[in-house]
Amino acid sequence: MVEPANTVGIPVNQTALLKDELDIVIPTIRNLDFLEMWRPFLQPYHLIIVQDGDPTKKIHVPEGYDYELYNRNDINRILGPKASCISFKDSACRCFGYMVSKKKYIFTIDDDCFVAKDPSGKAVNALEQHIKNLLCPSSPFFFNTLYDPYREGADFVRGYPFSLREGVSTAVSHGLWLNIPDYDAPTQLVKPKERNTRYVDAVMTIPKGTLFPMCGMNLAFDRDLIGPAMYFGLMGDGQPIGRYDDMWAGWCIKVICDHLSLGVKTGLPYIYHSKASNPFVNLKKEYKGIFWQEEIIPFFQNVKLSKEAVTVQQCYIELSKMVKEKLSSLDPYFDKLADAMVTWIEAWDELNPPATAATAKA
Amino acid sequence: MVEPANTVGIPVNQTALLKDELDIVIPTIRNLDFLEMWRPFLQPYHLIIVQDGDPTKKIHVPEGYDYELYNRNDINRILGPKASCISFKDSACRCFGYMVSKKKYIFTIDDDCFVAKDPSGKAVNALEQHIKNLLCPSSPFFFNTLYDPYREGADFVRGYPFSLREGVSTAVSHGLWLNIPDYDAPTQLVKPKERNTRYVDAVMTIPKGTLFPMCGMNLAFDRDLIGPAMYFGLMGDGQPIGRYDDMWAGWCIKVICDHLSLGVKTGLPYIYHSKASNPFVNLKKEYKGIFWQEEIIPFFQNVKLSKEAVTVQQCYIELSKMVKEKLSSLDPYFDKLADAMVTWIEAWDELNPPATAATAKA
Repeated sequence: MVEPANTVGIPVNQTALLKDELDIVIPTIRNLDFLEMWRPFLQPYHLIIVQDGDPTKKIHVPEGYDYELYNRNDINRILGPKASCISFKDSACRCFGYMVSKKKYIFTIDDDCFVAKDPSGKAVNALEQHIKNLLCPSSPFFFNTLYDPYREGADFVRGYPFSLREGVSTAVSHGLWLNIPDYDAPTQLVKPKERNTRYVDAVMTIPKGTLFPMCGMNLAFDRDLIGPAMYFGLMGDGQPIGRYDDMWAGWCIKVICDHLSLGVKTGLPYIYHSKASNPFVNLKKEYKGIFWQEEIIPFFQNVKLSKEAVTVQQCYIELSKMVKEKLSSLDPYFDKLADAMVTWIEAWDELNPPATAATAKA
Repeated sequence: MVEPANTVGIPVNQTALLKDELDIVIPTIRNLDFLEMWRPFLQPYHLIIVQDGDPTKKIHVPEGYDYELYNRNDINRILGPKASCISFKDSACRCFGYMVSKKKYIFTIDDDCFVAKDPSGKAVNALEQHIKNLLCPSSPFFFNTLYDPYREGADFVRGYPFSLREGVSTAVSHGLWLNIPDYDAPTQLVKPKERNTRYVDAVMTIPKGTLFPMCGMNLAFDRDLIGPAMYFGLMGDGQPIGRYDDMWAGWCIKVICDHLSLGVKTGLPYIYHSKASNPFVNLKKEYKGIFWQEEIIPFFQNVKLSKEAVTVQQCYIELSKMVKEKLSSLDPYFDKLADAMVTWIEAWDELNPPATAATAKA
């Protein structure tokens, strides 16, 4: 039986890594009591809370946390007409938090995620592991059979080219989930009782040229390296689709990381995912995505960005053009999404002007 | 501290999976006392022992095992002039065993590999895990973040295309090693005391388009699907290189599996690797490989087999031509190796004539 860890009595980590260089982004529609359990690990960090849905509702944040909170009115005020690229009534709105952050690193977590236990029973400091993942290189060009070669007690195995052992910078760290696995609605319906109890003690680089389903529940990334591509698309209210926000971002960041020789890691850390969302509601949100993805994934597998695209923004704008050209025939939604991708980049650059990024504050 | 499992008292598995469809191939220069420890798991199977080096030396096989043994004289007698493709004084000679087997599956293991313990202390039946890996499909076209989706308690995660969930047939199962990791000589020299103590409870498909360093120490494969590509090259006596036999086979099988839409898995099972080979001797064997691989790997990464190549043999012959054309400039050795690849296929087809494969016996 998997249970969340008990963190009562664990002191707040006063020497938290990268405390001043990382923001925690949380999308929510309810109170944030889940943060009580995370206090030992997360309290030292600054939170950016993106309030989804009704802006008149008051979100309760546990005492002692330093935070800024944005509701829909704030988003509209800050972005003006460009606010159209930020989803409403969907956790995809979290990417607004990535945009207003001025830090180098982002950790984003859902409000139904609790602290997991490792096999020894110890509470997992998920953020610390994400930071380790981001600070050490990735190895996307050749597979290392002993997993992360940079981890203590491991290395590159015989036959791994020496020229590739320096690795590349890591842009994204994708963490996993114990208890409720991140299944689609059909799988939830078929296997309502399945729980993930397997703790796999590994971190690995997803090889170049391979796409993966990126889940936004427990995710960290380097904003400077990949931030402008971490757009969670148009989901929820007024859109024909939901629950594909993180998938969309995952496909986009992966092809751009591959193009720019940046690394994407998956594996540790685990969080404890407490409750399965309603599979019937999920099915309604997902069903178009389930058949669209059969065409979207081959599209992304065949994306070739040009040599001229050397910044994330340039890559993303190129990608938006390809989306418009190749996916609009699937549904007019993709035409709108391609436009929103451009709006997103314009808004990103407005809030993060290249030269003065360090001093600008939304 | 990692230790091998104690198998004393574990009864011989009388319901061993695929007992009549699998051969165990062991290359050796010494007695095979290591089989004592494997008795509960391996005794039900037939062994093919390929004796390396001096054919007058008597190899002792523990009682109760059913086996056939081939020394150099046997290889010369059976293959005649084609015996030139089988390495001498190198464990690469093991591939002769793959060729003379008439079974569908092969498990090959080194004689310094013992039974590993899983984290609960239980002895790992490595062969049983390899068989499970081979009998269940692979998923090379998209990455599943919860690892093997076919394993009990796991599945494909949200965002995994449904059209890809049937997977493809698995051709190769690559197992790992606790205790002495499979490092090259430079890494052995730099980290003489490093031991692998991390048991990662996962099996995964190596994605299409990604190469990996295949180690021959603990390896299983489907002879019908990929056998003719499991050639371990020209190594050892009279050759400028050693310790690249399994790497060579790994590069070849991976590009062919990718071309034929077959799966290659890595991860579980672990064996306990007892002793590190001498790093100074290894360096002498390896050093040419260490710089050659810097060109060989990009060569394999760019291999494109033709649509006409629909059998493993056809793929392998095409590959041999590319090796001759592209790698001979690196060293005349590759010209010889390309010829040996052709000889290997000729010998394979002679011993395994397509129509009568089931009745032919060398």
